[in-house]
Amino acid sequence: MQTLNVSLADRSYPIYIGEDLLSSDYVRRHVRARQVMIVTNEMIAPLYLEKVLAGLSGLQVDTVVLPDGERFKTLSTLETIFDALLEKRHARTTTLVALGGGVVGDMTGFAAACYQRGVDFIQIPTTLLAQVDSSVGGKTAVNHPRGKNMIGAFYQPKAVIIDTSVLATLPERELGAGIAEVIKYGLIRDAEFFDWLEVNMQALRERNAEALVYAIERSCRNKAEVVADDETEQGVRATLNLGHTFGHAIETATGYSEWLHGEAVGAGMLMAAAFSADLQWLPEEQVTRIEALLKLAHLPTAPPPSMKAGQFRELMALDKKVHDGQLRLVLLKGVGHSVVTADYDDNKLDELLHRVCEAEG
Amino acid sequence: MQTLNVSLADRSYPIYIGEDLLSSDYVRRHVRARQVMIVTNEMIAPLYLEKVLAGLSGLQVDTVVLPDGERFKTLSTLETIFDALLEKRHARTTTLVALGGGVVGDMTGFAAACYQRGVDFIQIPTTLLAQVDSSVGGKTAVNHPRGKNMIGAFYQPKAVIIDTSVLATLPERELGAGIAEVIKYGLIRDAEFFDWLEVNMQALRERNAEALVYAIERSCRNKAEVVADDETEQGVRATLNLGHTFGHAIETATGYSEWLHGEAVGAGMLMAAAFSADLQWLPEEQVTRIEALLKLAHLPTAPPPSMKAGQFRELMALDKKVHDGQLRLVLLKGVGHSVVTADYDDNKLDELLHRVCEAEG
Repeated sequence: MQTLNVSLADRSYPIYIGEDLLSSDYVRRHVRARQVMIVTNEMIAPLYLEKVLAGLSGLQVDTVVLPDGERFKTLSTLETIFDALLEKRHARTTTLVALGGGVVGDMTGFAAACYQRGVDFIQIPTTLLAQVDSSVGGKTAVNHPRGKNMIGAFYQPKAVIIDTSVLATLPERELGAGIAEVIKYGLIRDAEFFDWLEVNMQALRERNAEALVYAIERSCRNKAEVVADDETEQGVRATLNLGHTFGHAIETATGYSEWLHGEAVGAGMLMAAAFSADLQWLPEEQVTRIEALLKLAHLPTAPPPSMKAGQFRELMALDKKVHDGQLRLVLLKGVGHSVVTADYDDNKLDELLHRVCEAEG
Repeated sequence: MQTLNVSLADRSYPIYIGEDLLSSDYVRRHVRARQVMIVTNEMIAPLYLEKVLAGLSGLQVDTVVLPDGERFKTLSTLETIFDALLEKRHARTTTLVALGGGVVGDMTGFAAACYQRGVDFIQIPTTLLAQVDSSVGGKTAVNHPRGKNMIGAFYQPKAVIIDTSVLATLPERELGAGIAEVIKYGLIRDAEFFDWLEVNMQALRERNAEALVYAIERSCRNKAEVVADDETEQGVRATLNLGHTFGHAIETATGYSEWLHGEAVGAGMLMAAAFSADLQWLPEEQVTRIEALLKLAHLPTAPPPSMKAGQFRELMALDKKVHDGQLRLVLLKGVGHSVVTADYDDNKLDELLHRVCEAEG
C-alpha cells in the first residue's frame, strides 16, 4: 500500500493505492459522523457494493444506484442524489462515497459540494481513468446539452482510495481510455514516464499488476503536483487538459454515448500534437512517436468520420478555456513540455481541422 | 455614499450603500471582462433594468428575466440561467449581476458558483431584506421540495451595490420582511441597535431615508463582522439563523408562497425568544419587549393557524443545523446575546410547539 498526499493547506488529503482496499479501514477512518451515502451505478453495485458496505457496519449507510454512462451526468440525475439524501435525512455531517468511474465521481463530488452548501466526500474510483485522473484534484461537474462539465465546482475529497484489484473486471475499452490519461502525464510534464510507457505499454494492456501500480502511482503523483500548484486552474493546471478541447468536441458531437472520454482525449492529444508540429513547435518525428504509442494502447488516432471541420470549430468555441473570444489550447513544445496558449495562427487551426476531418471522410 | 468592507482575505469585497447607484460606475468597475449576464425577475426588470444597462454600455450584456417568487427558487429555474449563459456563449471570465431580491440573489450567486466551476458575480439587492441580509456573506442556494436552501454553495460576490432609492417601490409587506432581519441583528449581537430600533421603528416603516440608511449600514456592518469571523458557518455565523429554524418550517409548511421569508423569521424569532424564556435563559419581560417591537414593525408574531406541533417538529428535523440527530437552535440569553446550542430539554420544545400552535388553533 502506498500513500500520496495532495497538498492544499486545510484541504489536503491522502491518496491510498493498493490491492483489496475496498473493505479496509481506509474508508471508515475518513467518515466524519454516523451517516454515509454511497453513490454508485448499476454496473458497479453488483460487483463491489457489498465489499464497501462490509467495511462500514454500525453506521447509517444508504445507497443511490445511478444508471451507467456519461449521458446520465446531468443536473436531473444529480437531483436523484439530493432526493435520496433528504429522504434519508442526511445531515450536514454526512459523508458521501463515490464508488465508480469518472461519471459517478464527478456527480458525487458535485452533489457533496452543493448538499447543504458542502458535505464531506470520499472517492473510490473503479476505472483506471478515474484512478489516474478524475478522482484526484477536486474537479466536479455535470454536463449541459451545450457542453461538457459546464456546471460544477472545485471541491476536494477527504480521501481517494484506489483499489487496483477492481481493474480485473474493467472492460478492454475502459482500460484503454484510462491509459490515454496516463500517456497525457508523460506528454505534458514527464518525458521519462513517456519513455517508460513506450517500453511497458504491452504490460499495461495485459494488466500486469506491477506495471499498473507503477503507472497509477506515477500518474497520481504528477496530477497531485499540478493541483497543489494551481487548484482552480488559473495557470499550469490547464495543461492537464491536453487533447481535451478537441476531445470534448468529439464527445459532444457524438452525444457522450459512442466515444469514451479517454478515447476522445487520445484522438485529441494527437490532434494537439499535429497542430504543434504545424506551428513548428514540435518535430514531426515526435508526432509519429505519439501516434505509435496511442496505437500500442489500442486508442483511436482520429476523430469520427461524421465530424466536419466547421462543427469542430463551433463546439470548440464553447470550451471553458475561451477568454474574451480567444480559444486557448494546450500544445506541445516537446514530449514532456506543454504550454497553454492563444498565441497561434487561427487559419492554421482551420487547416488542421479540415485536414484531419477530410482524411477521415 | 458609504463603503463597508467584508474581510475575507483574497475573497474580500466592498459593500457600497447610497442613493442612485444603479447607473453609477460602481457596477462597471467590478466587471472583469466584456461579458455581463444580468439576472432579474419580471417585477424588477420593468423598474430598474434600463438603469443598470445604461451603466454598462459597450459591453456584451445579456439578460435573464425569471418569474417572481420563492417557489421558483429551484434547480429547474437555475437551468434557465445556465441555458442563457451557454446560448450567449458566456466564457469563464463573464460577470453575473443579480438585480433583485433574495431569491434572485441566491439563485444568481449559486449559478455563478457552478457555471464553468465558478465565475464572478455582483449583487444589486432591490429589497430591504436582500440589502441587509442575503446579499452579504456569500450564502447561495436553491430550495428542494423537502427543505429550504438545501442545495447551494458558499460563494462570495465581487461587490454588493445597495441603492437605497429602490426601496421607494418596495411593497409594504416586503419592507416589514426586511425589518425582521434588521431586528435580528439587534437581538443576536447589538443591544444598542435594538434600543435604537425601538425608538425609530415608526420612521423605518415610513421609509425615512436617513433612518433606512442608518439601519442598512448598521445591519450590513454586523453581518460583515460575523461573516469575516466565520465564513462557512462552523460557529458564530449560525447565530444569524435566529428564528430561522422555526421560520423555515413555516415557509415549508406553507409551500414558500403565503409567507415572506422575513415574516416567517419574525414569528420564528419570537418563538425562539419564548423558548429561551421557558428555559429561564431570558426574562419574560424581554419576550414582551421583542413582541412589541415586532408588532410595531407590522410583523406576525405567531405561526399560521393551520400548523400543528407535530408538523413543526418534523420539518425542523430537516434543518441544516441537525448534528447526528440533535437539533441545534439559536436561542437568546438576553437582548444582544445569542447562543447556538443543542443543550436544552427536548420535552420543553414540544411543550412550546404545542402551546404556540394551540394558541393559534
